[in-house]
Amino acid sequence: MGSVHPEINHGRRDLIKLGAAGMGVVLLGEQALAEPKKGVKFDEEYDVIIVGSGFAGIACGIKCAEKGYKTLMIEKMGRIGGNSVINGGIFCVPQNDLQKKAGIKDSNELFIADCMKAGLGINHKELLETLAKRAHETYQFTLKYGAKYLDSLVHEGGHSVPRTYQTAVGSGAGIVLPLMERFEKMAGVALKTRTKFDDFVMDDAGRVIGILAREDYRFDSKLFSDDLENQGGTPKAFKATKAVMLASGGFCQDKYYRAVQDPRLTPSTDSTNHPGATAGVLLKAFGIGAVPVQVSWIQFGPWACPDEKGFGVGSMFNVNASFRYGISVDPKTGKRYMNELADRKIRADHMFAVIGKDENYPINLCDSQAIERLLPDHYEKALKAGILKKFNTLEELAQHYKMPVEAFKKTVTDYNSYVKAGKDPEFGKPTNMVDGITLSKAPFYAMRGTPKLHHTMGGLQINTQAQVIHSKTHQPIPGLYAAGEVTGGVHGASRLGSVAITDCLTFGMIAGENI
Amino acid sequence: MGSVHPEINHGRRDLIKLGAAGMGVVLLGEQALAEPKKGVKFDEEYDVIIVGSGFAGIACGIKCAEKGYKTLMIEKMGRIGGNSVINGGIFCVPQNDLQKKAGIKDSNELFIADCMKAGLGINHKELLETLAKRAHETYQFTLKYGAKYLDSLVHEGGHSVPRTYQTAVGSGAGIVLPLMERFEKMAGVALKTRTKFDDFVMDDAGRVIGILAREDYRFDSKLFSDDLENQGGTPKAFKATKAVMLASGGFCQDKYYRAVQDPRLTPSTDSTNHPGATAGVLLKAFGIGAVPVQVSWIQFGPWACPDEKGFGVGSMFNVNASFRYGISVDPKTGKRYMNELADRKIRADHMFAVIGKDENYPINLCDSQAIERLLPDHYEKALKAGILKKFNTLEELAQHYKMPVEAFKKTVTDYNSYVKAGKDPEFGKPTNMVDGITLSKAPFYAMRGTPKLHHTMGGLQINTQAQVIHSKTHQPIPGLYAAGEVTGGVHGASRLGSVAITDCLTFGMIAGENI
Repeated sequence: MGSVHPEINHGRRDLIKLGAAGMGVVLLGEQALAEPKKGVKFDEEYDVIIVGSGFAGIACGIKCAEKGYKTLMIEKMGRIGGNSVINGGIFCVPQNDLQKKAGIKDSNELFIADCMKAGLGINHKELLETLAKRAHETYQFTLKYGAKYLDSLVHEGGHSVPRTYQTAVGSGAGIVLPLMERFEKMAGVALKTRTKFDDFVMDDAGRVIGILAREDYRFDSKLFSDDLENQGGTPKAFKATKAVMLASGGFCQDKYYRAVQDPRLTPSTDSTNHPGATAGVLLKAFGIGAVPVQVSWIQFGPWACPDEKGFGVGSMFNVNASFRYGISVDPKTGKRYMNELADRKIRADHMFAVIGKDENYPINLCDSQAIERLLPDHYEKALKAGILKKFNTLEELAQHYKMPVEAFKKTVTDYNSYVKAGKDPEFGKPTNMVDGITLSKAPFYAMRGTPKLHHTMGGLQINTQAQVIHSKTHQPIPGLYAAGEVTGGVHGASRLGSVAITDCLTFGMIAGENI
Repeated sequence: MGSVHPEINHGRRDLIKLGAAGMGVVLLGEQALAEPKKGVKFDEEYDVIIVGSGFAGIACGIKCAEKGYKTLMIEKMGRIGGNSVINGGIFCVPQNDLQKKAGIKDSNELFIADCMKAGLGINHKELLETLAKRAHETYQFTLKYGAKYLDSLVHEGGHSVPRTYQTAVGSGAGIVLPLMERFEKMAGVALKTRTKFDDFVMDDAGRVIGILAREDYRFDSKLFSDDLENQGGTPKAFKATKAVMLASGGFCQDKYYRAVQDPRLTPSTDSTNHPGATAGVLLKAFGIGAVPVQVSWIQFGPWACPDEKGFGVGSMFNVNASFRYGISVDPKTGKRYMNELADRKIRADHMFAVIGKDENYPINLCDSQAIERLLPDHYEKALKAGILKKFNTLEELAQHYKMPVEAFKKTVTDYNSYVKAGKDPEFGKPTNMVDGITLSKAPFYAMRGTPKLHHTMGGLQINTQAQVIHSKTHQPIPGLYAAGEVTGGVHGASRLGSVAITDCLTFGMIAGENI
């Protein structure tokens, strides 16, 4: 294979000086590069280099810029914000102001218990405790920098109480864009898009002192592995005098590494993530001794639609309307098959069982009372795209999806009686969350549903200071921080909805505070 | 921290020459060592170095010695054989001779389906296919080198049919000891116990060309992390002209790394493994770019006894008698609570639910007909140790464990009727596996049961040639092989009983063939 750093190779065939500290061993990667005696000749120098421009990167960037640090943020894609800018914009804050106003009793312990129940108990609890303590501050931090939220809370599946803010624009862009706008105006900051991290540069004491990267790089989603095959761009070496911070996200779109963890996933398995969500940075960090945590846990988002790509315009209908105020039915039987507000893993497992090998996608539906509670963005685009359909009667709906009409109507009658009785004896849906809304007011709205790869729970081990831990010392790797989906442990086996924003922003902020 | 390789550091403060091949980056671990310009000054030179002396290491060692390779096997403990020598000695071979003799219909597809059912479908199927194809040859290989087996098969939980050999001595020693005896007599081989792998030595093209290790090292099980804290022994550098082969086992006893994957595990959580089963080698391999596979899946052995340490002398009673020919009951209710022949994960989960916070350990029991089928080793030591108890009547047994007598007697009556009817309507135990044996012939035998950490499913990614894959190239790391529990993927989320020996020996053999 050719080198992507030809000009670094040329004339740098000499040697890097390695220190003698520690347990003593040559730890040289397969393709270690010739380096000059006095270290890499850096092209540019910063205090801090942040890899990635989503929630975690931006929060860290602002904190660093607030301290006057010369801060470089690199983003490999042509646009900023990664998954953050396209996500649902729901942000979980235990013990928040709207809860207090509404008289909703919440506690840090209840929040942690909810997360650990979904996470099958293997969450790194000290990280959750940190989130619980800092979440409200994180929320205020986003307000200060221009984020705007609706004044009512979302009750996300798996949470014991409503504790989730919704951005006013109905997506993560409502946080990412205002924060990025402010970040870019701060003194001493630089943002480079189309700039891809290649590897770490370390000094003789094992400290991360910079990175190698490529500018003018173009991600190519047609490649099986862009990380492996794409050698485009102009190599540069960037020095980081204080720290390198990894905010590079998860690997739902890494056709190689996701299949290593779950070989059932084929290259064509769909995901809600943007195409650049690959494992490149994560794997490079393992290669300098970062500790792999729970990397095999991949979450499927149960609220996607098989009739469009990715998260699309349909998911928010299911998140906000059909699962909460409506039902999901198996079109073969016309019957419900799960608690529509169970956690994501449980719902995805049930949905996969319905879908089976013959792609019998469940039908998610609600009535007009539910639609009236939505932001227009949560259903109008889906209607226009033709993936959300409107029906004047339940019969019409059943016939369209080739469901047994009488069985389906009985399902609706039964469900409505459960809502009225305040108890779902069939699947245990918490009827206290549905605000008394039954399936009764025409027109009715329905969409086919499917789970899609949504979040990779595992990643790098960090401590509560957002420092990346080294497997050889069980101590932080000097000069290296990480936050968000590239890390592991916060969510355990399964992440609860709306905790991602809390995780990414809070640990991004903490990284910035500690650098 | 001081260096454990002082004499390598001294006078070697110069530099290692690194090649310019590949994607080009400095990948130096935190405690990289000063190295001489012309590489490490090796103390000894071999063709092949094998790290670990269990099933995988020995199978590889013999294959290498057969080819006349100068082969060094190192073992960090004072005795050889790791977990292999203390395991149950049950060895799964699909389509084996005893099956044919007994008219048991088996197939490679059925074996793979059984493994993937237990593994929740995330097994690396190509590795299972390799096992299925080669298992019978592996079995013959062990016969050739002196292993001896009983002439009836064991029907292990989770397997659709009996396909498991049992060593004549009732433990893995029945394979390890004869093979090791022959290995040591082969030309050109060396075995060094109390010799601990420290790290890899690589050349300028990224090939593994040797290891750093310490002789006269003594593992200290009192340390929280021997890998981190124990700096004893005499450093040596060993050259491997052909390959380094990792057969270092899993990490059930690594108090640090197992808790990173499952924070519910405390330092005192018991395991069936020998105390040296730590993650040191695994983590060092990740540190040179090996790919972490499914590292968060830890298996609990459901057949252990809480009244002794580790695998002990009681486990074989449950493996061979109580679960198959008897029942397991909750002492609080006197009732069964699971299919005693379900796979290990399902059984462990059910048992943990019974045990709860108040350590209400289940009671595993059988009658004398079952005991008559056992090897003496499978119950006599346990009786002598007082952890297996003998009762003249069912009432006496119930009273001893403070169980409700009538409820317990009804449980036994019901169970016996299921055996006679050939169907267990309560828990679906496959009654065709119990040979018509009911709980009827006094005396009765019982033991308290508990799951213990037993196997770590995840590890290094290998291909079907037992080569370790590099995350940066998706290709083998030149000069590096691995087999057995240090690798991941074969077993997916949960290993079926008796497939470990198949896995370790077969891929150990394959590594030896390919080196």
